[in-house]
Amino acid sequence: MKPLDVPGSARTNKWFMKQALKEAEKARSKDETPVGAVISWNGRIIARGHNEKELKNDSTLHAEMTAIKKASKNLGSWRLSECDLYVTLEPCIMCAGAMIQSRIRRLYIGTMDPKAGVAGSVLNVLQMENFNHKVEVEYGLLEKECSQILKDFFRELRVRKQN
Amino acid sequence: MKPLDVPGSARTNKWFMKQALKEAEKARSKDETPVGAVISWNGRIIARGHNEKELKNDSTLHAEMTAIKKASKNLGSWRLSECDLYVTLEPCIMCAGAMIQSRIRRLYIGTMDPKAGVAGSVLNVLQMENFNHKVEVEYGLLEKECSQILKDFFRELRVRKQN
Repeated sequence: MKPLDVPGSARTNKWFMKQALKEAEKARSKDETPVGAVISWNGRIIARGHNEKELKNDSTLHAEMTAIKKASKNLGSWRLSECDLYVTLEPCIMCAGAMIQSRIRRLYIGTMDPKAGVAGSVLNVLQMENFNHKVEVEYGLLEKECSQILKDFFRELRVRKQN
Repeated sequence: MKPLDVPGSARTNKWFMKQALKEAEKARSKDETPVGAVISWNGRIIARGHNEKELKNDSTLHAEMTAIKKASKNLGSWRLSECDLYVTLEPCIMCAGAMIQSRIRRLYIGTMDPKAGVAGSVLNVLQMENFNHKVEVEYGLLEKECSQILKDFFRELRVRKQN
């Protein structure tokens, strides 16, 4: 029985982030840095994405970019102003820019990226007065799980390099 | 006779920007905001792109994004560290982020975008100490032509709306 998968059941923000974590797992299974994202609209997931940069040799194939492209395709519109995006890792500048471009309403972040994140770490570009759209942000949703999957991945990488 | 099109001939930066302008013209012919880009590698154009956001209902389909994806496909690598990008309009935050992600070596900009450009207008993200890559930038290449095609497009839009 998977109660959270039953259509119409009350889906919490944690449930959506768990789905983003499942996407991150898919990335890990492909030896990609494990980052995953989903986009919700009217309480449903309308797009999923995970990092496929190395596998497909395309630096633009971050989890969020794939999810944004799919959501626009599914809704038949580039405007995602009624959509929320859940991502396991704080977005880089490209992905944050894509959220501004696509008018994402709200962003839920799992764990922060002190080196390249621009939702507060290196910069905060999602609430800048100068841009024509601001994205609401909530931080630390399933932070421990979202952080752990990255830690495990990089530890494994280091072990592999040593052997 | 088109001396600049002959392989092996000396191609100037202006020639490459003219090719980006040709891409901008393609966007205009599709009723898209006329922005175009090309990517050069070893003196040759390896990718072209123009804005197709409205036509394809995808906010990520800016000229630079399309060109970066194509260049990676052509070189078989996401690393474009020997590539230069020519774009008719100062990049937005998404596209500047993609240039950092893909390690573009040098960016040539036609005209500036005071409202959304992040190569000096709203922000300058291409030479930030915090990010792991910096993009060299040259400004004002064929500035007049790159600006004029945008002015013409928006003037035409206003006239259409009035009628």
